[in-house]
Amino acid sequence: LNPKIVFWYEFASPYSYLSAMRIADAAERAMIEVEWRPFLLGVIFKAQGWDTSPFAAIPARGRYLRQDLGRISAARGLTFTMPEVFPANALKAARLAIAAKSEDRICEFSRAVFTAAFSKGRDISDNAVLDDCIAEAGLDGAQLRARAGDPSVKDELRGNTEEAQRLGIFGAPSFTTRDEALFWGDDRLEQALAWAISVKGRAA
Amino acid sequence: LNPKIVFWYEFASPYSYLSAMRIADAAERAMIEVEWRPFLLGVIFKAQGWDTSPFAAIPARGRYLRQDLGRISAARGLTFTMPEVFPANALKAARLAIAAKSEDRICEFSRAVFTAAFSKGRDISDNAVLDDCIAEAGLDGAQLRARAGDPSVKDELRGNTEEAQRLGIFGAPSFTTRDEALFWGDDRLEQALAWAISVKGRAA
Repeated sequence: LNPKIVFWYEFASPYSYLSAMRIADAAERAMIEVEWRPFLLGVIFKAQGWDTSPFAAIPARGRYLRQDLGRISAARGLTFTMPEVFPANALKAARLAIAAKSEDRICEFSRAVFTAAFSKGRDISDNAVLDDCIAEAGLDGAQLRARAGDPSVKDELRGNTEEAQRLGIFGAPSFTTRDEALFWGDDRLEQALAWAISVKGRAA
Repeated sequence: LNPKIVFWYEFASPYSYLSAMRIADAAERAMIEVEWRPFLLGVIFKAQGWDTSPFAAIPARGRYLRQDLGRISAARGLTFTMPEVFPANALKAARLAIAAKSEDRICEFSRAVFTAAFSKGRDISDNAVLDDCIAEAGLDGAQLRARAGDPSVKDELRGNTEEAQRLGIFGAPSFTTRDEALFWGDDRLEQALAWAISVKGRAA
């Protein structure tokens, strides 16, 4: 088995944006396969008794988020704009991402969504915004939307969220390796890649 | 004015342990002055509506904490042991640290407390544990305890916590620079040091 990392992300998560924009290159350089798995962090927050993101619930965390993301984005040549609606409802985007997987475009579509949300500050629950993302990923809108409505796609997204919970995931982005080691946060991407190489195909 | 960083820490905070063990060396290499300022994170959590640390309140976060701290400590040649009581009541330790400042031993005393808590897993609210830390820092117990009971020390600790809140601090460790830029987490130490150099004596 080749070294592999699972990238767990939520489209409403600003730090997931940072990882989405660099994980493909970073993993390719390290010759590690990446599996993109969107999940719904809100479901996990609810199970913890939280009704929204801590960035929205706690003003000091929201202010810091803007400072921190602004500095890191600038250092990486990205722009950061806080979306007009935060946290966004990412259900439709996540289903479309899973639908895009069967056309091998989950990475392209996901990056288009994150760019719309956190570079352009757009509301990714808006169908017009999602249409632009679908087009940017080179996909056919009618076809992708039809597939995204399929019960198997809904089940897969629900399954991702349940599997994230089983793995002990409580935030996004998170990374897991074949031995189910968990790494939380864009700051841990390098550590997760190094771990993936060291464990290779070894099971837990 | 020379470049300077303020190190905001809470003795019950595991990630503050990581920074306490490396900040003096890292800042010295970068020729940056460090001001050690203990504060009471529990007061800030309470103001946010939290009655304990998220590591204690949310089981998945507590489990991840052990994984993450274990990996990082190992990579840095430190040992990590989760304290028997978590989060510890760090009020006495914080007052003693402020008292140790007047003998220029706040850094040594603080590292002794963090080592007791997170390397040895001891309960730092215990007077016998604190006595060991006082001795390790080369301080006189009776004298330090007398000073720690002084109203000016209590006021200074309360002032630190209030100032932390004013600066938008919501977690530990945090770092601030002369222009009041805020950096949260041991992961941000390098970024904070670089910022301190770039702003030097510039006011906000």
